[in-house]
Amino acid sequence: MKKPLLGLMAALMISAAPVANAETIATGDLGLIIERAKGSVLLVDQSERAALARIEGLGDLSHASLVYSPDQRFAYVFGRDGGLTKVDIVKREIAGRVVQAGNAIGGAISDDGDLVAVSNYEPGGVRIFDADTLEMVADIPTDSKTIGLVDAPGDRFVFTMWDTGETWIADMSSGKPEITKITDMGENPYDALITGNGRTYITGLFGEDGLTALDLWSDNPEPIRVLPNYGRGQEEMPVYKMPHLEGWALAGGEFVLPAVGHHEVLWIDADTLKETGRTKTHGQPVFAMARPDGRQVWVNFAHPLNDTIQVIDTVTKEIVHEFKPGPAVLHMEFTPRGHEVWLSVRDAGKVMIYDTQTFEKLREIDADSPSGIFFTSRAHRTGL
Amino acid sequence: MKKPLLGLMAALMISAAPVANAETIATGDLGLIIERAKGSVLLVDQSERAALARIEGLGDLSHASLVYSPDQRFAYVFGRDGGLTKVDIVKREIAGRVVQAGNAIGGAISDDGDLVAVSNYEPGGVRIFDADTLEMVADIPTDSKTIGLVDAPGDRFVFTMWDTGETWIADMSSGKPEITKITDMGENPYDALITGNGRTYITGLFGEDGLTALDLWSDNPEPIRVLPNYGRGQEEMPVYKMPHLEGWALAGGEFVLPAVGHHEVLWIDADTLKETGRTKTHGQPVFAMARPDGRQVWVNFAHPLNDTIQVIDTVTKEIVHEFKPGPAVLHMEFTPRGHEVWLSVRDAGKVMIYDTQTFEKLREIDADSPSGIFFTSRAHRTGL
Repeated sequence: MKKPLLGLMAALMISAAPVANAETIATGDLGLIIERAKGSVLLVDQSERAALARIEGLGDLSHASLVYSPDQRFAYVFGRDGGLTKVDIVKREIAGRVVQAGNAIGGAISDDGDLVAVSNYEPGGVRIFDADTLEMVADIPTDSKTIGLVDAPGDRFVFTMWDTGETWIADMSSGKPEITKITDMGENPYDALITGNGRTYITGLFGEDGLTALDLWSDNPEPIRVLPNYGRGQEEMPVYKMPHLEGWALAGGEFVLPAVGHHEVLWIDADTLKETGRTKTHGQPVFAMARPDGRQVWVNFAHPLNDTIQVIDTVTKEIVHEFKPGPAVLHMEFTPRGHEVWLSVRDAGKVMIYDTQTFEKLREIDADSPSGIFFTSRAHRTGL
Repeated sequence: MKKPLLGLMAALMISAAPVANAETIATGDLGLIIERAKGSVLLVDQSERAALARIEGLGDLSHASLVYSPDQRFAYVFGRDGGLTKVDIVKREIAGRVVQAGNAIGGAISDDGDLVAVSNYEPGGVRIFDADTLEMVADIPTDSKTIGLVDAPGDRFVFTMWDTGETWIADMSSGKPEITKITDMGENPYDALITGNGRTYITGLFGEDGLTALDLWSDNPEPIRVLPNYGRGQEEMPVYKMPHLEGWALAGGEFVLPAVGHHEVLWIDADTLKETGRTKTHGQPVFAMARPDGRQVWVNFAHPLNDTIQVIDTVTKEIVHEFKPGPAVLHMEFTPRGHEVWLSVRDAGKVMIYDTQTFEKLREIDADSPSGIFFTSRAHRTGL
């Protein structure tokens, strides 16, 4: 009974905080942490290494992500239940909420911050909303579960169809979606990412081996097969073990890819998209995330080995540090310049903060079943 | 007489503005513009494309730059007169000021935001200050004019000596500077940069041809000669025409270098540091700055051709757009995701804002002899 009580006390203490902190008005070093069981988000301060407030009433956050407005004041939280919730991190309250579909799977914000897009399973497709008002400005049905939605430079959104294997590029610069369709991306794409420069879009495939890339700088992007002999393939891995592709790290000139169903990460040359190496790991990797300078990659693992973190040096591709933060390490987020990292340790009810040079633990923060951690600096980056 | 009067009116209008905008409380999309003649900075809002307030009393800003605190609340402005001024952009006032040397040439902020360093001509050396209090915490005399000061991951500062050709790395992680000295960087380094990942430090040389690079990931960094047959060399270019190295663009896998004393930019492979191409330009380039996605490089030019901008496509290395914003285009700053660019047009007394996709002019803002433009998103990047 001890844990729930402590959790409650933490909640009470946090709820009391906003009054004292109401004048905090610089938003560059803030962040939100998804509390997946409670349907709430925890507002945190990187510099203070502290929780500031809890904001509740966001619906089903069992699979949730969020993006930030360019001024780093508003977060748009995409819930599993199709809820799109606009959170005001200055006032520490919900500024708006719509339930825009039955089952959603992530979203994105346009490079100018004017539009927020959500991709949906039920009904399949993408809906685009005015970032100010949350009024729908475009409805793009796709007749398919729609995954891998990202923003790209030039007021564009890119997304992919599970059922038909098509990727669509929706250019919103005229105010109405102008759609470019790319077919033959492969069988059952299940997730996708865009590189930080907005040039390369990569889908992971569930229905066949390998991945598929697009060069969005090309006038007529064509599917490029990546690692066609590697992947889930015939092994029939259950989909819940597939790593999130947004966990891909770009370290120097290489991607680091969590291998599917194997205890290793794969290294891929970012230019040629060819494999350049493999590193054996403690378990099946879920996220392989590069410290912002690209010198280290931090890896967490699937159940039941999800109490462990390994740190890989990107020059030697060797593991240089391993430790056990606690049960169910679900997510990692680096401070924007990489000197510290925050880890969600779900079953400990804690977020833990580490120095990335010394690996020393600097602080623990109470949180209720924490999962995704999102710092406001994401506002200034493409595809996050 | 018309221009000064308009300038005065603009100043009055701006001074009145803060009241109307006093509730702006998120700092992610703000910025400061150096007003070099007046010794003031203009607080601007990217999303509103508007000036919010003028903050005066910063001394000699004829050669000035600034860095931001991680929370994007404070700017540290480095003036030519050795003044280090801490500006509170939330309260829109000076929060502190020290005149720490007789003649300074730029500064940097540590990755954790705790320390601000300034490099000085008179007396030569680097001084390091507590970012909160502006109290000096370290004085590092170098017996040389000191240039090219940058921050590097791991609480380090890197800087270079004009007179002795040495580069020093000061590691501040223990609280006191631990110095690593690298000799033989070349004759009379005049400026330097660090790449965005904090790995490569490059100095430009005045006393001999070429540049010198260091791999800061190496345990024992050794000088690497870059373009040894290219540079100022025997041509005896006056130093005031040397391009600022921080203007170097990293576009994809290549650097774009403003050629010294020639009407061209040079392309250098970021891995091998070998030349990969040249593009003829309208004049002697001063800044060659990549749009954040790396697809375009915008170039401005030295007097008397400094009324013109050329835009280069980084795939074809060809000029795709040219226009004349007005007299004396001194600096450019992209919005963090690159959809717009702000230009300082000093002799027009204007900052001009353009769409980078359509090249359409979106807005003009009055400013008094504007030069450097610095958006708060720099807080989250290394070496800016």
